[in-house]
Amino acid sequence: MDNRGFQQGSLNSFRSSSSDEDLMDIPGTAMDFSMRDDVPPLDGEIEGKDKSYNGGGIGSSNRMMDFLEEPIPGVGTYDDFNTIDWVREKSRDRDRHREITNKSKESTWALIHSVSDAFSGWLLMLLIGLLSGSLAGLIDISAHWMTDLKEGICTEGFWFNHEHCCWNSEHVTFEDRDKCPEWNSWSQLIISTDEGAFAYIVNYFMYVLWALLFAFLAVSLVKVFAPYACGSGIPEIKTILSGFIIRGYLGKWTLIIKTITLVLAVSSGLSLGKEGPLVHVACCCGNILCHCFNKYRKNEAKRREVTTHGLNSLSFGESLSGTTLGMRIWGLYVSYYFPLKTLWRSFFAALVAAFTLRSINPFGNSRLVLFYVEFHTPWHLFELVPFILLGIFGGLWGALFIRTNIAWCRKRKTTQLGKYPVIEVLVVTAITAILAFPNEYTRMSTSELISELFNDCGLLDSSKLCDYENRFNTSKGGELPDRPAGVGVYSAMWQLALTLILKIVITIFTFGMKIPSGLFIPSMAVGAIAGRLLGVGMEQLAYYHHDWAIFNSWCSQGADCITPGLYAMVGAAACLGGVTRMTVSLVVIMFELTGGLEYIVPLMAAAMTSKWVADALGREGIYDAHIRLNGYPFLEAKEEFAHKTLAMDVMKPRRNDPLLTVLTQDSMTVEDVETVISETTYSGFPVVVSRESQRLVGFVLRRDLIISIENARKKQDGVVSTSIIYFTEHSPPMPPYTPPTLKLRNILDLSPFTVTDLTPMEIVVDIFRKLGLRQCLVTHNGRLLGIITKKDVLKHIAQMANQDPDSILFN
Amino acid sequence: MDNRGFQQGSLNSFRSSSSDEDLMDIPGTAMDFSMRDDVPPLDGEIEGKDKSYNGGGIGSSNRMMDFLEEPIPGVGTYDDFNTIDWVREKSRDRDRHREITNKSKESTWALIHSVSDAFSGWLLMLLIGLLSGSLAGLIDISAHWMTDLKEGICTEGFWFNHEHCCWNSEHVTFEDRDKCPEWNSWSQLIISTDEGAFAYIVNYFMYVLWALLFAFLAVSLVKVFAPYACGSGIPEIKTILSGFIIRGYLGKWTLIIKTITLVLAVSSGLSLGKEGPLVHVACCCGNILCHCFNKYRKNEAKRREVTTHGLNSLSFGESLSGTTLGMRIWGLYVSYYFPLKTLWRSFFAALVAAFTLRSINPFGNSRLVLFYVEFHTPWHLFELVPFILLGIFGGLWGALFIRTNIAWCRKRKTTQLGKYPVIEVLVVTAITAILAFPNEYTRMSTSELISELFNDCGLLDSSKLCDYENRFNTSKGGELPDRPAGVGVYSAMWQLALTLILKIVITIFTFGMKIPSGLFIPSMAVGAIAGRLLGVGMEQLAYYHHDWAIFNSWCSQGADCITPGLYAMVGAAACLGGVTRMTVSLVVIMFELTGGLEYIVPLMAAAMTSKWVADALGREGIYDAHIRLNGYPFLEAKEEFAHKTLAMDVMKPRRNDPLLTVLTQDSMTVEDVETVISETTYSGFPVVVSRESQRLVGFVLRRDLIISIENARKKQDGVVSTSIIYFTEHSPPMPPYTPPTLKLRNILDLSPFTVTDLTPMEIVVDIFRKLGLRQCLVTHNGRLLGIITKKDVLKHIAQMANQDPDSILFN
Repeated sequence: MDNRGFQQGSLNSFRSSSSDEDLMDIPGTAMDFSMRDDVPPLDGEIEGKDKSYNGGGIGSSNRMMDFLEEPIPGVGTYDDFNTIDWVREKSRDRDRHREITNKSKESTWALIHSVSDAFSGWLLMLLIGLLSGSLAGLIDISAHWMTDLKEGICTEGFWFNHEHCCWNSEHVTFEDRDKCPEWNSWSQLIISTDEGAFAYIVNYFMYVLWALLFAFLAVSLVKVFAPYACGSGIPEIKTILSGFIIRGYLGKWTLIIKTITLVLAVSSGLSLGKEGPLVHVACCCGNILCHCFNKYRKNEAKRREVTTHGLNSLSFGESLSGTTLGMRIWGLYVSYYFPLKTLWRSFFAALVAAFTLRSINPFGNSRLVLFYVEFHTPWHLFELVPFILLGIFGGLWGALFIRTNIAWCRKRKTTQLGKYPVIEVLVVTAITAILAFPNEYTRMSTSELISELFNDCGLLDSSKLCDYENRFNTSKGGELPDRPAGVGVYSAMWQLALTLILKIVITIFTFGMKIPSGLFIPSMAVGAIAGRLLGVGMEQLAYYHHDWAIFNSWCSQGADCITPGLYAMVGAAACLGGVTRMTVSLVVIMFELTGGLEYIVPLMAAAMTSKWVADALGREGIYDAHIRLNGYPFLEAKEEFAHKTLAMDVMKPRRNDPLLTVLTQDSMTVEDVETVISETTYSGFPVVVSRESQRLVGFVLRRDLIISIENARKKQDGVVSTSIIYFTEHSPPMPPYTPPTLKLRNILDLSPFTVTDLTPMEIVVDIFRKLGLRQCLVTHNGRLLGIITKKDVLKHIAQMANQDPDSILFN
Repeated sequence: MDNRGFQQGSLNSFRSSSSDEDLMDIPGTAMDFSMRDDVPPLDGEIEGKDKSYNGGGIGSSNRMMDFLEEPIPGVGTYDDFNTIDWVREKSRDRDRHREITNKSKESTWALIHSVSDAFSGWLLMLLIGLLSGSLAGLIDISAHWMTDLKEGICTEGFWFNHEHCCWNSEHVTFEDRDKCPEWNSWSQLIISTDEGAFAYIVNYFMYVLWALLFAFLAVSLVKVFAPYACGSGIPEIKTILSGFIIRGYLGKWTLIIKTITLVLAVSSGLSLGKEGPLVHVACCCGNILCHCFNKYRKNEAKRREVTTHGLNSLSFGESLSGTTLGMRIWGLYVSYYFPLKTLWRSFFAALVAAFTLRSINPFGNSRLVLFYVEFHTPWHLFELVPFILLGIFGGLWGALFIRTNIAWCRKRKTTQLGKYPVIEVLVVTAITAILAFPNEYTRMSTSELISELFNDCGLLDSSKLCDYENRFNTSKGGELPDRPAGVGVYSAMWQLALTLILKIVITIFTFGMKIPSGLFIPSMAVGAIAGRLLGVGMEQLAYYHHDWAIFNSWCSQGADCITPGLYAMVGAAACLGGVTRMTVSLVVIMFELTGGLEYIVPLMAAAMTSKWVADALGREGIYDAHIRLNGYPFLEAKEEFAHKTLAMDVMKPRRNDPLLTVLTQDSMTVEDVETVISETTYSGFPVVVSRESQRLVGFVLRRDLIISIENARKKQDGVVSTSIIYFTEHSPPMPPYTPPTLKLRNILDLSPFTVTDLTPMEIVVDIFRKLGLRQCLVTHNGRLLGIITKKDVLKHIAQMANQDPDSILFN
């Protein structure tokens, strides 16, 4: 985490270099798979990195290589942009645990160590809950305040936001809760009036100015200090949690910068949400706090577990404290990833986060009420038609959004556009702010807009959306019947329609810019607006034409037939489903929100239609599409591999290629091995009994091999180029005056996974997915034949799906 | 499913025979593992069984064995009491799917077939939802009616239950909702009065008589028609879903008999619940309806998927329609088992089931209200002490219950007791009924009792539990303050204490008898009673001693400090957690029921304490304990294997044993193979290149081998004992006049799983668990060394946990 300077440009530079290699160095045609496992070259920086990851220096390593107690530093760690080996990491954790348990019987000190080790998990959860809860609370409060800052300032104290400012004012009437003398718009401050065209222009100008300032600050901070802080972070987190390594992506600089820039980005009024970036922030908390505990610092698998806890803690925590709806959905989406055993801990961290959040932000509580809507009117079977229409809209919008957004992002990556992120952000912000200010629905924050759209009009609602005629006529039973729309509703409809168009267009260009940006809130807003428009339309249709055949059986005059708020909710679910394709969790959440069996069918109908429509136009959700765009090695857990290919079709070497590069267990010298290492770029080598028999003994990683040989040459007396490397348990007695041997059995993985060459690829994919493998060896009748890496599997899947196999960049 | 007669006794007879083998035939010591994979002997019944499972007869098989298009019937099926191979089953389904998809391009008919195949899943779900929903509704209504039948009968119509009977009566007052002239107790019918000691005795007598009659009918039906219908069925279903085969366990006879006897058992007043058996009923529905669809009938893995849908449909469905709480918890417990993709279908089936259930049983709706309690009083930090006490009670009770119940069940299996199930049931019923009648809390149905205990006393509650002094004094704000208990409450306390003792004792003997019996409701009742007792105690303590230091800071006089209903709920969660050890889902559910963040900490504290206490006294939940008691091969998904053993320590043959029995790929005659088959009982044989090289080619199943050879001898011209069996792709040209060869490559599994002998067992266990393997071959440096079966793994786990490894009976 301390070589931030190195990381800044590394993602891009490395990416381009490895793809160049893929295209240039291969003798075969473009159709042929890349022969290499793209390992970044080992340079001088490795030792520095290892130190920070291992805690110990090289000097402490043992001189007796034969009875090596302490592992050589660096052995067992990973390079940046590589995939971890879940099996190895889990084994290491279990070894560690066993060792501590065994030692605990020896002394009191060891016993205390053992207890504290067991307890550290809970302490870590407590810290994660506290940290992520506080950060979420801070972000919430600051974003609120800064959003209001664009419109004016509180004279009572500049640190009050609009709501707070008028909270304690005595001059507030119930009707105009938002207006109080303590709150001054910019025009009041500058030209001492809030009336007239000039005041409007001053406010307009200040609004745009603040937006540009916030956006500029956000993009500059991201660009200078933490390039990984941009975007939602979800594609990368999905990949990292599945076992990929991106150093610094969950580091402290990313955390700090992302927290600050998230507030700025949200306040700037751009069409983005804070849910995705908040997930990234929570994951950073989890990952950083891991470094305080030995147990977690050294184990990549354990770290990923804790990171998930961080994620869950914020998701559950926010949902418990009722802050945002989106987080809740996120929690469900990810929680099925890690074993059930650890759910307790997530839950605990979530509780802590929720309490922290509540105590920091006491007004967060009221949001629960905003989003929690209880509808009472039953829906009619006929209404399924508009609900399904909303589903189709959601699916179409989702597919369209993914396509255009990915196309735009690709353009950003490949053309000059990507070189001017600051200008891009400023232009988009300027357009958004200039178009947003005149329309009250675009000017208000998007989550406020959504809650207003979800809301069913009550007796006391003063919003324009509820400006019906005969507002105060209740039917028997106190229900508000369907009523003709008033002027307010009509003007609201127009404004909402304009808002819809703006949101649809601008979100495409916003998501993926070099600032933190989430997608939940904009998607839901699009759906909710469309739903509300349709809902009000249906309501008016039913009111004016209740004698039509489709209405007259169930909607008599003066009854409350149609609930526009429900339409908004259904629309939001449909759009969210279309973009993210996570339909089940969505329906469950929406079901909980509406709190009844009644509305599950509309929600389900819309969400399923949306998913089907969107799937028909493109298989991937937005996050998977971004994962593919970036070429990350992510093996989708759900997707079944449906083609009838065999392991031998995927393994390397291919039929016309030279033989597989192997090491023998007892006949190669240090020099031979070093030649193999320098002539190839494979990330590991199988070790066999002899080249003739090709009987597999084990697998050794390139990185471990290099470090061990280097180490042996430095420390071990007399290891020279002609020393023979033994991977066997006992080396034979040597005649005197031969150079000393180098025993490397300790770095040999003695249980490599093997499959036969006739194993169907569907089984191989299943093994890779379920066991989290990095590579798998292929045998035929007991002879070693080839190797399949995770990258090969991903390339094969891409090829079978008629996608470009070279889009998979990393191993 | 049609050889019911055979199945009746088979479970027991087979079980004893195989364990005898284990003890007698092994040359090594008792510590040594059994060498054999206990395969039941192949007898004449196999063909009959296969026919019913394959749909085709043997006569249809192809004469050209070399170019076998159609598989030999029987190849690819499993014996009873064996474990399926998930990898093979899934591959088969994918092959099938691919074939249909490919064919669909050829003709319109094939296209229709393909579409209907894709659609059949949804149709199946619809049917499952309808069937399981109807059955659940029927069971509910009948059990209600028959429970009331024990007390009296409705003169308006004998088919009305008590509530129904008085529903339409005009003579009912609000205070005495239960008393109406239309409802006649047995004493009123027989001696025309309801008063006096004699009437009481008549009612008492009739109550016991009906209970005995119901119990007798239930146990007789189970004994005669469907022995698998007894118990809760959950241990067996867990095992079956994990891939074990018990023919008839989910068959139509089991379904019919279990449905009928469940009603009888519940009505008889025994201390049992209907949730577990309902799950079994739903699974039967799923499994039986599978037989209507080709896609599902032939594939064991697919069938299991559908069975889970059946299970989920009922669980979710009931929870949606609000019938029972227990089902809801069940749904969560099992839903993490199968891939997320299929959750949609479960959900759909659940919706259908919920609607069916609602339309059948319109009064089921009111139950939701019974269990849904909204508490408003906040709890105080000090109250965590009683909550944790409840947790300890729950844990202790759970552990005690599991121990005594398992000990009693073991006694039933091993002694004479097991031979007289009818007498046992009658005795327990008689004791329960005789002790239950005088006490109103034992006389009412257990779910009614629980809802009464959960309920917080309102102004209008007329129950004895709410008989406080100053009943109608409300504090400011309309709250009911803590009040001194009246006579009713004191007598209720005594009766509840007696109920608690009775339930604790009698449930131990009830669960496991030869009638359908669930455990959710009795466990919750025990916890709820204990909780309510403690709650009322705390309430009175706080009322009379509000000046004590622990109370006076938060509980002023006249305030509503303590909610006894909350204590009941916490107690129920603790006891349920102690018995089943499924704490997380429990808390989530209870959290939903109470509907607020407020009560999640009490519930969590109690559930966690309960789990820790119970785990300290015994690792297993009740279902896992029963699985182990019955020796089923169930590999727990959560439990981590923490010992540092290697594959070579577990594999067979052991060091001193004779070599592994293998077949060679091209040098053994039919006679050689038949000798191997008759001399061993292994369920499969590895095929190697030659005995000298021990290079692995593949794995062939004993069952497939026997069927294929038998088939070849019957159908293929000239295959005799000296024919050579070839497992290779091409057999070499033979000199004339040698007997024709037999090619068996088509039954050879060419992609057997292998691990090296140095693979840690934790990884092996992980592979078995995640991939659903049946066996795995062990190699050393490319040479075949041994084999590990699922049974070996389970035995090894049992041995490492200091349990009897011979308790694992099946493979």
